[in-house]
Order: sequence, then C-alpha cells, then structure tokens
Amino acid sequence: MKIVFLLFDRITALDVVGPYEVLARLPGARVVFAAPQAGEIRTDNRMLGLIADVGIADVRECDILVVPGGFGTRILERDEDLLGWLRAIDRTTQITASVCTGSILLAAAGLLENRRANTHWAHRHRLSEHGAIPTPERVVRDGKYATAAGVSAGIDLALSLAMELVSPEVAAAIQLTIEYDPHPPLDCGDAARVPAALRETIVARAKAREVELAAADIRAEPSADRATALRSP
Amino acid sequence: MKIVFLLFDRITALDVVGPYEVLARLPGARVVFAAPQAGEIRTDNRMLGLIADVGIADVRECDILVVPGGFGTRILERDEDLLGWLRAIDRTTQITASVCTGSILLAAAGLLENRRANTHWAHRHRLSEHGAIPTPERVVRDGKYATAAGVSAGIDLALSLAMELVSPEVAAAIQLTIEYDPHPPLDCGDAARVPAALRETIVARAKAREVELAAADIRAEPSADRATALRSP
Repeated sequence: MKIVFLLFDRITALDVVGPYEVLARLPGARVVFAAPQAGEIRTDNRMLGLIADVGIADVRECDILVVPGGFGTRILERDEDLLGWLRAIDRTTQITASVCTGSILLAAAGLLENRRANTHWAHRHRLSEHGAIPTPERVVRDGKYATAAGVSAGIDLALSLAMELVSPEVAAAIQLTIEYDPHPPLDCGDAARVPAALRETIVARAKAREVELAAADIRAEPSADRATALRSP
Repeated sequence: MKIVFLLFDRITALDVVGPYEVLARLPGARVVFAAPQAGEIRTDNRMLGLIADVGIADVRECDILVVPGGFGTRILERDEDLLGWLRAIDRTTQITASVCTGSILLAAAGLLENRRANTHWAHRHRLSEHGAIPTPERVVRDGKYATAAGVSAGIDLALSLAMELVSPEVAAAIQLTIEYDPHPPLDCGDAARVPAALRETIVARAKAREVELAAADIRAEPSADRATALRSP
C-alpha cells in the first residue's frame, strides 16, 4: 500500500505527522513524503524543517493520498501545477484524504465539487467558495474523499482509514501502540461548544499572524521579487 | 520563553510534533530543535526526515526542555555525551519534560531518581531500572519534571504546561486552534483497559521491529563498523 503525504512550505506539522504516525504502521505501508520540489520545507511558523524525499513530478500514483493544511495553502490554492498534480494523482487513489485546510487544496482542484467535506473550523467558508459542501464533523467521508477537521483531527481520520482499509483489530493495535487515549485538560477543542468571543479572538489572531508571516516572506525575498510581491493583490 | 526539543535518529515523530504544535503557540515562544549533531535525522521507521537546526553542544540553557522517545533512545541511553548534556541543561530549566521513552533518557541521566514518572506503557520496567518510580498516568508531574505516556500523550502534556505556565485561557485558545476535540473511532488507547493478548502482540511486534531496524542499521554501516556492531551485545 503506497501512501503519499504532500509537504509544502508553511505546512502545519501535526496535520501531516498525526496521520503519518498511524498510517505508516499499516501492514505493508510504503510511505512517501513529496513536495512541489524535493528537499527541506519549513512549517507555518518557520520553526521546524521537514524533508520531502521526492518532488511531486516524480510521484504518479498511490493508494492513499494525504493532503495536510497550513498557511501555505493560501499560495498553493492558486498554483496550477500543484492543482493539476492533485487531479492526476487522485485518478489513481483508493482514498484521497485531507487534514485541516488541506481540503481547500482538494476543493480548489475541483475534486470536492458538490461533495460534503470539512476543514479547520475557521476556514469553512473557503470550502463553499470552491463548490464543496462544508460539513462540521470531525471526519467527513464522501465517496473516496475523507476530509478531517483542523490539525489534530488527522489522527482520528487515519484511525478510521485503518479500520476500513485493514481491520478494526489492526486499528486497535495502532491506537494502543501510539497510546492514543486522549485526556485534554480542558474541553475547548470544538468550536461549536466554546464562547463566540474565544472563536473571534483566534480568528483575529490567525489573520494577524498570516499577515505577519507574509510580510516576513516578502522581506526575505530579493528586492526585485519583493516589489512584485508587494504589488500583487 | 526558550523551548528546546531534542531530536535524534530513530525518533518517533508524533512524540515531538504533538507538543511542538502546542508549545510553539505560547506567547513569546522561541523554539529550537537540537540533535547530537545538527542536520537531518530520520524517524524510527526511517520514513521521514526532520531537521535539527543546531547541535546540542550549541544549546546551553532553556526554559522548557522536551525529550521525545523512539527506538533511538536504546542507543542514546548509553551515550555519555548526551546524558551529560541533559544533566547540564536540566540545571537551567523551569520545566524538564518528556514524551514516551524520552523519560528513559532523563532517567538514565539520573534526573528521575526516586521520582514518579511515566513512559510508553510497554517500557515502564526500563524506568525502574534507572531508579525512577513508574507511574501509569497520562501526564505525571514530580517537581519540575513532567513525563507523559506514549506518543500521542505529548499533546495533553503540552496543554497542561500551557495552562500552568501561561493561563487556562491561552491553553484553551491553543486547543481550539489545533481543534483538539479527540474522537478516536475505537476505545483502545489505554493499555490497562485492553485485553492482555493485544498488549502482548504489540510488545512482540515492537521487539521484532526493533531487531529488524537494528539489523538494517548494521547492514547500512561500512563493513569495519559492521563487524564491531555485530560483536557488541
């Protein structure tokens, strides 16, 4: 079973590492980390580097595709090379999955047209913009498309895939191996059950963060590129 | 607040990425990934590369130290340079934390002598071998030492640190940001509540896997080193 995880600059690390930690333990799993270009990519906050062993041009088929999210999706959702690759590889998959805003990329590629899907709670409107039907469930399944809620939801998504693709016994063994018996010290993980003020603070902070990170990217670019970047909408 | 995550070859990725995803969101967090040598390290199954931006020799103090686990701890628990570094940096920390078998390294360094601590459920006997008191709770706190259960428990550990070091409000905002409202599809994450046969299968499989990975390491080494490795106990 060949499992491809998409990596890209400005990725949210747990989006990809959560499902990797589960799916890599499936019997016979062959795991490939692929990015637009092979080599090091950095997480959303630039704090951690992950290695893409191959570029997407060298990955033409797989059984399971997992597309994680992160700020980087803002750029990639307009990247025709990436969207074309998603469409092409999707034609070969048994399961096409996403975590968090990874589903925005699948939707932008046209793969979730009129399909029920989820994403990070603060980004559901972006799914509708691309023709998908926002569905606030932790893991949403529509045909072969499995889309999870934000960040940590990728662990639940992957365990549900392990149950379906192999067996409940194998899923149970993996869950026990990663000792996934979650006990959050607070009960604040579901946007539908927290005060609106907390949601609004987080959305405002994320937007400010995104602007700040984009500005840092622009500062880091050579001056000619910088002028172009500042002019773009 | 300076937060150092130890990286090393044969690490379990979720052990480190779970708490990173929480602690990197603390206000003012400065995050450093450090390994015995700077550069790329590979996970326990060799499937994913992570980048250590610095070598441990260049990290002399921090506020929070997080030591993750993985097969690699089997080698590092006998590595006097690493154990000496752990002892030295621990003298500067406000919190010294571990996930999974990371606590075996803290214990091997002598830092958990007569202290209550936890680790992955299948490895608790190794804590006693190093003088710690195995304690089967998801997150165990003894003085400034916070040790989590296996793999996924690092997320709960980090949220508890966020509550304590900053505030419940900040911890709540982080939990909602990473949408940590876990819904495992099965209830098999707690070793104390699953059939003994499942535990035994997993322990046997992990041992076989460790032998297989060690053999792969030996095969990958140049022949002179290989002979030495094969002779060692």
